[in-house]
Amino acid sequence: MDSSLQDYMQALGQRARAASRRMAAAATAQKSAALRAIARGLDESRASLLAANARDLAAAAGADIEQPLIDRLGLDEAGIDRMIEGLLQVERLPDPIGVISDLTYRPTGIQVGRMRVPLGVIGIIYESRPNVTAEAASLCLKSGNACILRGGSEAFHSNQAIAAVIAAGLESAGLPAAAVQLVETVDRAAVGELVRMKAHVDVIVPRGGKGLIERLNRESSIPMIKHLDGVCHVYVDSDADPAMAVAIAFNAKHEKYAVCNAMETLLVARSMAAEILPPLAEQMLASGIELRGCPEVCAWVPAAKPAHESDWSEEYLGPVVAVRVVEDIDEAIAHINTYGSGHTDAIVTRDWSRARRFLAEVDSASVMVNASTQFADGFEYGLGAEIGISTDKLHARGPVGLEGLTTQKYVVLGNGEIRHR
Amino acid sequence: MDSSLQDYMQALGQRARAASRRMAAAATAQKSAALRAIARGLDESRASLLAANARDLAAAAGADIEQPLIDRLGLDEAGIDRMIEGLLQVERLPDPIGVISDLTYRPTGIQVGRMRVPLGVIGIIYESRPNVTAEAASLCLKSGNACILRGGSEAFHSNQAIAAVIAAGLESAGLPAAAVQLVETVDRAAVGELVRMKAHVDVIVPRGGKGLIERLNRESSIPMIKHLDGVCHVYVDSDADPAMAVAIAFNAKHEKYAVCNAMETLLVARSMAAEILPPLAEQMLASGIELRGCPEVCAWVPAAKPAHESDWSEEYLGPVVAVRVVEDIDEAIAHINTYGSGHTDAIVTRDWSRARRFLAEVDSASVMVNASTQFADGFEYGLGAEIGISTDKLHARGPVGLEGLTTQKYVVLGNGEIRHR
Repeated sequence: MDSSLQDYMQALGQRARAASRRMAAAATAQKSAALRAIARGLDESRASLLAANARDLAAAAGADIEQPLIDRLGLDEAGIDRMIEGLLQVERLPDPIGVISDLTYRPTGIQVGRMRVPLGVIGIIYESRPNVTAEAASLCLKSGNACILRGGSEAFHSNQAIAAVIAAGLESAGLPAAAVQLVETVDRAAVGELVRMKAHVDVIVPRGGKGLIERLNRESSIPMIKHLDGVCHVYVDSDADPAMAVAIAFNAKHEKYAVCNAMETLLVARSMAAEILPPLAEQMLASGIELRGCPEVCAWVPAAKPAHESDWSEEYLGPVVAVRVVEDIDEAIAHINTYGSGHTDAIVTRDWSRARRFLAEVDSASVMVNASTQFADGFEYGLGAEIGISTDKLHARGPVGLEGLTTQKYVVLGNGEIRHR
Repeated sequence: MDSSLQDYMQALGQRARAASRRMAAAATAQKSAALRAIARGLDESRASLLAANARDLAAAAGADIEQPLIDRLGLDEAGIDRMIEGLLQVERLPDPIGVISDLTYRPTGIQVGRMRVPLGVIGIIYESRPNVTAEAASLCLKSGNACILRGGSEAFHSNQAIAAVIAAGLESAGLPAAAVQLVETVDRAAVGELVRMKAHVDVIVPRGGKGLIERLNRESSIPMIKHLDGVCHVYVDSDADPAMAVAIAFNAKHEKYAVCNAMETLLVARSMAAEILPPLAEQMLASGIELRGCPEVCAWVPAAKPAHESDWSEEYLGPVVAVRVVEDIDEAIAHINTYGSGHTDAIVTRDWSRARRFLAEVDSASVMVNASTQFADGFEYGLGAEIGISTDKLHARGPVGLEGLTTQKYVVLGNGEIRHR
């Protein structure tokens, strides 16, 4: 490890920790003023933001960078509008910090409750989209945290320009500029350093491709709020409404492919196969969706390709779906808990008992009855904002909003009580 | 790593995972029946439990084992009574599993809520007290989890005898005996294996000395619910009621020494030093408590020894207290957030604003106003039971009851809704 890089990162961490103390104590009005000032600052800095982005785009065009990455890198007037609107949306959310719940008198006379407080310092690691800089900063700011942002090197100038506006906005509201710090080196070793600064960073939020997240998961000694796979299922039960089953299964796959809440595997109860599979397959094939089926599925749908064992745990993120006939809900639940990724799974059924069983027994972050898996996100769930979707069980599970960036501590209010054991 | 040990542990993990699926779906009445059957079983097995414990005690007497460890190892009729009472207490707690909160209609027509569910498989690692076997098993059982228990090798026969009763109780209620498995090898490498079985174990709960927990913290690749230090503070503010301040500070130290919620450092506002320090020191010295003070404290209390820098972060767990004079609440909060362990800290004050500031700005699992730090435990807080006290911020913070052994998943209830992006 380069010791000057290490010193640089440690200094960043120390400033973040100090800033986090001030952020934790900031009043709601002060945080709101900062968010509005940043939105105003972005509006007033359009020319310099676009110029900085143009520098990044020019460098990317000259370098060996893939087209999708370049697409995500671009920032235009409409993109700036969306960043501004996002900041104002976060400003309007209720402040989660300081909320005290369950404050209760105990027999000893003390009152015990729980107070929602910030986590402290959040490290966020992301790839080319520069708008994430404003979005992540706004969520950390609203939740009273300091953050250290490490964006993609290809967006370096864009991120710097946005971070300068954020720093000015924080200071104009009397908050420390160090509450939002950008890692200003393109040295890739900085990420390895960031995920090991346990004394200065409380949680890491990686946003990016599976490769990045798997690597960080191995390297990080700091807890992460992360999402690996979205191998989502729809199970069409023997008592499903056939039209509803076809509509939900088609929507869960086709509405958008490259999203983690898209259905990747369809399970159909044997007794429904004849009624469901031919019309659904026809609709899917007509939309260019490839079907990979178990032998029974292939018998009903001659155009389906045979599925291999690996298809049951594959996240296609594209116009491909694995389809399997199962005997009943027991086999469906066992399949999902074996091959699924614990993200989002839905049952289509009219049967009350099986709906209740599916909700209780499928071990996933989101379980649904008679709804499309594509609903699984923070905005649809009413969280108002989303920092990501967690497939872990501890701390935050499923779509993560402001609450995932907070924790609760106990408060004890007394009048001189002492304990007699 | 010995491959037969690895195979043994993997098989244990696979059985635990399978059992956890059945436990998650178990009805409240079934779990209650199991807890009552185990309590009955312990009552009926008194002779064999005492015989097994006698074997452990005899082996310990022959080996080079410290007396405190032997004291904790002993099990008598009263100890069996307490285990039985503990099981029946857990049986009477409300079942946390399946509770759905915040179920709300969204504009799209779907209902979104959160359901409390078990974590899955809990690995519990503890030292000599055999009663922990029954206690930990009862909490995991009530919260719908399976567990793998690794007790101290010195309690091997006692733990086996208790585990046999638990297994019979589970089976009599129609639940899998593998829901509570004891690691039945004294090979110390089993612990290292247990904390790395990510596929089979969802969380590790270490209960024991700091050395054990620090080692596991380094080795474990599985999240832990753990507690390292309890460096707790009482800050006597400039507006404290003097009699209350002396009573709380004395109780926080003296009520019990060897507990994590005992005060280790006393901070006194300069303006209160003359009034507080001499009478409090007199009371403490008379009780055999050693004072280690900053120079100002030593001036007020000639019997105090000079404190070294290391005293401010020391967990004495004995009749020693570090005492420091500070200028004001700012200095007190800064001291606590710098030297403290984030466990439990209290302010004594009559001032409304400073009480509110202390609650908001001290970054600890429990923050108290005008109450003794010794109140910080799950029973005093009304959790009904306690698996430990967490000084981490993510997932569980502070005293951890049944809720800490659970997580929440999202449930989405619909009537055929599909998403239009």
